[in-house]
Amino acid sequence: MRPQLPVTGAWRPGDPPGRRQFARLATDRPFVLEGGGMLRDVELAYETWGELSPTGDNAVLVCHALTGDSHAAGELGGGHATPGWWDTIIGPGKAIDTNRWFVVCVNVLGGCQGTTGPASPHPDDHKPYGSRHPVVTIRDMVRAEAVVANHVGVQRWLAVVGGSMGGMQVLEWGVMFPERVRSLVPIATTLAASAQQIAWWSTGRRTIRLDPRWNGGDYYDAEPGAGPSEGLAMARMVSQITFRSEDLFTDRFGREVVEPIEGFELWQRFEVERYLEYHGDKLARRFDANSYLLLTKAMDLHDLGRARGGMDNAVRRITAPSLVMGVDSDFLYPTYQQETIAGALLGNGVDVRYVEINSPHGHDGFLLEHDQVGEQLHDFLLEVEKSDD
Amino acid sequence: MRPQLPVTGAWRPGDPPGRRQFARLATDRPFVLEGGGMLRDVELAYETWGELSPTGDNAVLVCHALTGDSHAAGELGGGHATPGWWDTIIGPGKAIDTNRWFVVCVNVLGGCQGTTGPASPHPDDHKPYGSRHPVVTIRDMVRAEAVVANHVGVQRWLAVVGGSMGGMQVLEWGVMFPERVRSLVPIATTLAASAQQIAWWSTGRRTIRLDPRWNGGDYYDAEPGAGPSEGLAMARMVSQITFRSEDLFTDRFGREVVEPIEGFELWQRFEVERYLEYHGDKLARRFDANSYLLLTKAMDLHDLGRARGGMDNAVRRITAPSLVMGVDSDFLYPTYQQETIAGALLGNGVDVRYVEINSPHGHDGFLLEHDQVGEQLHDFLLEVEKSDD
Repeated sequence: MRPQLPVTGAWRPGDPPGRRQFARLATDRPFVLEGGGMLRDVELAYETWGELSPTGDNAVLVCHALTGDSHAAGELGGGHATPGWWDTIIGPGKAIDTNRWFVVCVNVLGGCQGTTGPASPHPDDHKPYGSRHPVVTIRDMVRAEAVVANHVGVQRWLAVVGGSMGGMQVLEWGVMFPERVRSLVPIATTLAASAQQIAWWSTGRRTIRLDPRWNGGDYYDAEPGAGPSEGLAMARMVSQITFRSEDLFTDRFGREVVEPIEGFELWQRFEVERYLEYHGDKLARRFDANSYLLLTKAMDLHDLGRARGGMDNAVRRITAPSLVMGVDSDFLYPTYQQETIAGALLGNGVDVRYVEINSPHGHDGFLLEHDQVGEQLHDFLLEVEKSDD
Repeated sequence: MRPQLPVTGAWRPGDPPGRRQFARLATDRPFVLEGGGMLRDVELAYETWGELSPTGDNAVLVCHALTGDSHAAGELGGGHATPGWWDTIIGPGKAIDTNRWFVVCVNVLGGCQGTTGPASPHPDDHKPYGSRHPVVTIRDMVRAEAVVANHVGVQRWLAVVGGSMGGMQVLEWGVMFPERVRSLVPIATTLAASAQQIAWWSTGRRTIRLDPRWNGGDYYDAEPGAGPSEGLAMARMVSQITFRSEDLFTDRFGREVVEPIEGFELWQRFEVERYLEYHGDKLARRFDANSYLLLTKAMDLHDLGRARGGMDNAVRRITAPSLVMGVDSDFLYPTYQQETIAGALLGNGVDVRYVEINSPHGHDGFLLEHDQVGEQLHDFLLEVEKSDD
């Protein structure tokens, strides 16, 4: 049988903070969201590495993807359910060298690792928001990150960097705060979610809704094992297929079976099924189903051109030199989308470079091909640093 | 709210037969399945079009895909929940010209449109098999089809034709009954299910299992609306993404929304979501959740080389001239798999031709590109007919 999974894998107040620091947002008034909702007493969890230079010119904001969090670098444990998701890239002497640069990563609004999200206590009754949590957008996340920037004393980022949902934040930074970004590095991302991307994420949300233990979003007082972990794990299983590539699955699993087959049974597993179950369960242990709903919805709503007089007008606000990267085997955020980003920026006269990462890993290549990604990042950061501006 | 969906969309004894005819299989002894299970008093629903020639040399077997059935051609209604799935291709004067050829299509074993499957009455208690139904394989389906061939008086098929799961049957016909097939037309299919294909179908099965109304497979006495239709619809929604292509979704839906957005809500739908829901619900109205489990498992188990001393040995048994077709935009059964089939047959010295269908429709191109598919089929059938053998 499947192991008993927690009701939510969210970090909660009282849990060990680990490397987390906290900034409080708009205590005097509600934080009004793009979608019309509002949040009060928003907490933002963030982490930093390295030291901010006296002139504040060495700060790099790293934006995390769907199931990432502020723990971009560092070890597992002590309040962190995973090792840093870009630990291979961020650190002393690494590509984003924390001896040289001051690195900040903020858990996104609506997330579940310290920043206010659906598992967080509602200020009215100190019970989890659950179904009361409003929809957030990438723009809301970026506005919250700008507050953290103020909090840590960064007027202008040397670079804003991120992949997938992180890359959406990077692009929004470029549009919303052109004067606060000296360069941008959007990776494996898109100007606006495509119909197929919406299809993938929206079916994931429906999978969670299908789990009766989701209970309309109000499940936090369920007994252990009686939360929507199965629905969350299932949603992750499907997305895990889209994160990787066909070749990789063939090479790694082929038609290997978990138990030797003598007679066929419906639930007998091939190795690839065990792999997907492993990833599903692993996420359910450290994530929150409602956050998964909110953040995937934020990705579906991602459209740089929305309410800005169209995409061309929006992109025109981006002036920062940019390094755009894609992964050749990515079928979730195919490389034509990153080429489109680079093309649009080029059309603006922005100093832009497009680099394609060679990888069998699919979308997750932006996390796994740390040598290629790191080398590009490192060189780009050095160039930006040396540039006049 | 969603419309109320039936507990099962299966055809049941007593429902109008429509064009269905029935053959009974092995009444004197159980039909022992490849996977070790057995079935008694198996009924096979099939349809025919045209007339068998006096010498019996004009018979074409058409094998259906996952959610197809014996109704390959003909109208909707009168016991048929859909128009013929290849009605554009099969009929008088059409590509598979029923004035010239005698066409047979059999609902597969484990299916739900007349042939014995999990919604059928168990001979012991006349209650639906439900969880008691054993796993079936493509080879079991083909053995059952061979019984129908005997029943209708066909010793040797002029051609066995089918796409996707139908193509798996075509390949098995070539291996299991080389003397009974004069030619083969496998379309958009594979020699053995790949790890990614297993990943897609196995997560679909888990989605049905996640629906508490599936109830371990015993749901047939549930009240209307209280069956696992939501789980089945969800499984279909995900597979519908894999059946089509990214370009098609972008062109057809883009980022259009169903309801104009004023403020964002979690369950507000983009058009692509409505489309997927439509296809999910549509399938739930005419299909059975347990059949979906069994047939997708049969596809995962599909491996021409199993228990035959490996793939090369298995393929070596195929001697029939073959037309192999793939769809260029298919990412579920990518064209390299059909090229592999053609290459393997060529290595046998088989007279084989590989044709790639140009289509934006993805995997479903084999159903939708009737002009291209039909023209190839028609010409091939005429050639086979004229050939010496």
